[in-house]
Amino acid sequence: MPEDVLDTAVGWLPEQDLASVRERVPMVYVDAVPVRVNHLGTVERVGLLLRPRPDGSISRAVVSGRVLYGETVRDALWRHVTKDLGPDVDPLLPTSPQPFTVAEYFPDPTRTGYHDPRQHAVSLAFVVPVAGDVTAQQDALQFTWLTPAEALSPSVATEMSGGHDKLLRIALAHCGT
Amino acid sequence: MPEDVLDTAVGWLPEQDLASVRERVPMVYVDAVPVRVNHLGTVERVGLLLRPRPDGSISRAVVSGRVLYGETVRDALWRHVTKDLGPDVDPLLPTSPQPFTVAEYFPDPTRTGYHDPRQHAVSLAFVVPVAGDVTAQQDALQFTWLTPAEALSPSVATEMSGGHDKLLRIALAHCGT
Amino acid sequence: MPEDVLDTAVGWLPEQDLASVRERVPMVYVDAVPVRVNHLGTVERVGLLLRPRPDGSISRAVVSGRVLYGETVRDALWRHVTKDLGPDVDPLLPTSPQPFTVAEYFPDPTRTGYHDPRQHAVSLAFVVPVAGDVTAQQDALQFTWLTPAEALSPSVATEMSGGHDKLLRIALAHCGT
Amino acid sequence: MPEDVLDTAVGWLPEQDLASVRERVPMVYVDAVPVRVNHLGTVERVGLLLRPRPDGSISRAVVSGRVLYGETVRDALWRHVTKDLGPDVDPLLPTSPQPFTVAEYFPDPTRTGYHDPRQHAVSLAFVVPVAGDVTAQQDALQFTWLTPAEALSPSVATEMSGGHDKLLRIALAHCGT
Repeated sequence: MPEDVLDTAVGWLPEQDLASVRERVPMVYVDAVPVRVNHLGTVERVGLLLRPRPDGSISRAVVSGRVLYGETVRDALWRHVTKDLGPDVDPLLPTSPQPFTVAEYFPDPTRTGYHDPRQHAVSLAFVVPVAGDVTAQQDALQFTWLTPAEALSPSVATEMSGGHDKLLRIALAHCGT
Repeated sequence: MPEDVLDTAVGWLPEQDLASVRERVPMVYVDAVPVRVNHLGTVERVGLLLRPRPDGSISRAVVSGRVLYGETVRDALWRHVTKDLGPDVDPLLPTSPQPFTVAEYFPDPTRTGYHDPRQHAVSLAFVVPVAGDVTAQQDALQFTWLTPAEALSPSVATEMSGGHDKLLRIALAHCGT
Repeated sequence: MPEDVLDTAVGWLPEQDLASVRERVPMVYVDAVPVRVNHLGTVERVGLLLRPRPDGSISRAVVSGRVLYGETVRDALWRHVTKDLGPDVDPLLPTSPQPFTVAEYFPDPTRTGYHDPRQHAVSLAFVVPVAGDVTAQQDALQFTWLTPAEALSPSVATEMSGGHDKLLRIALAHCGT
Repeated sequence: MPEDVLDTAVGWLPEQDLASVRERVPMVYVDAVPVRVNHLGTVERVGLLLRPRPDGSISRAVVSGRVLYGETVRDALWRHVTKDLGPDVDPLLPTSPQPFTVAEYFPDPTRTGYHDPRQHAVSLAFVVPVAGDVTAQQDALQFTWLTPAEALSPSVATEMSGGHDKLLRIALAHCGT
């Protein structure tokens, strides 16, 4: 979950203010699991971002980011997906506001299985079919399409942090896998 | 719900056999509510078929049809949507097998609000965003894109039969309208 | 949505701080639609709170309240339901974290159909079957069980504010009504 | 999925007729995953039936059975849960007709991951909190409450057949586990 406070005037917060707010109320987030589907809607690939960690290791993650003050959930989904996957993607946002799950990230990693050392965040999670070309943006090293089986494999799971392996597993279960 | 027994070898049944089976077990159906969405996934139009009734009146309906023996729900959705809306449509079938509701059609119109004089049918209902050009097929006179407000208006509701007005209302509620 | 900042040490915020935070980030809320069900799970009654408005009129509402810092969504649901409906209720909280819809309340009443003059709130909405005796608490004048038909009637809808009539309609559609 | 054709006059079919119908159309089924929940709705135990197989081995399974002609999905859920778990259970059937998934059982075990050698069945799957005492009935040897972790363990998964291990995994993912 990279910081996103500077990329829009709506909801803009100075770093210091955001830090202060984060200690007082849960943040609203969206998580988007990018997928490629066939003509029947069946998930054929799951997309994961690859990001460097401060300790030099790498971390795989789904698209994730904050909902800003005054911003709708749909606008936040669009903003984060197009920011992380590049300007040439064509995401098909869900027709329903009903997320497939709600991920509750806590600073304490033992609370829910979702973990964010910086804050308490409540995240609405959606599966988002993506057409068009993906080009990893900003701080992401790479973006990889994996088969559902690969994405659920133990080796990939250990490369995910903050509970994104759990989120991915629930997303694919929701899709019938 | 037009008859569909002759359009594929899989699950083909002579008329007489189908009639006999229909008195013994509930039929599996799919209902698809075709929609046009904007880039944020918000429903902007709902598509309704217009069909002549035996009594000369017309009836508006969503896409609906039987799941055949040996056919998956996704295959049935694809078959009915492309059959009813024409070969140039590009339907975006759902990533999840979870329907937004289950419509139980009974010969007795007072049971559930869904009514089919021919049979007891259990129908999995999905909202299906449709890109491409729609051309009403077969026995449908016309296909019309309506705004959600138009589709929910009393005048349109009275033109729908079998409980499709209720199904449409639930579909749009699921989409947040 | 009555203020709830003083009823627990977890997430407690001085009034002034909360006001300041509310102008910076969306608040996380839960909405709970209390229902009575029969043995088959069918909704037979919907519960509405009756509250006085500053102008002397009354307003009907579902249970609604903030998720505090460090509090899970389930804990917040439990807290608000038992606080509003009294100590003798036995709410059956949902097994799934998937809400039936997400209501986005904005200070601008024209944005989404959900309106809160004080803040931007993103609310996870659940249908909650309630057993036991309900006794309206605190600032609520009364609590009434209505049939689904009564709850959806125009006269009741006009007594609801902030979009709770819309939320109730979507809740009942989700339940197949 | 034990045979259930003789236990009610509604939808009763002679064995021979049922066999004939089963070769012609998909059957409508319900699957119910019995759970014990705490006061917050969190799943603490999952219930599995233990049944002898013709080859002498045992099989674990969730509650599963056919929807009869003229029977609602809710009535079928109630009938199968109370038949399999005994007269002293108090199941809390879902308020919404929306299943958490749809399991498509085919005679060909390679089609979907759900398998039924006798028939093509389309099953609406629900998580059902169960209060009261469970007493395994009829052909079930035993009924066991397992923790979610136990239920998802490889050793239990191998004791489940027909894809019920997959169904259980999707059910628990839906519940946030």
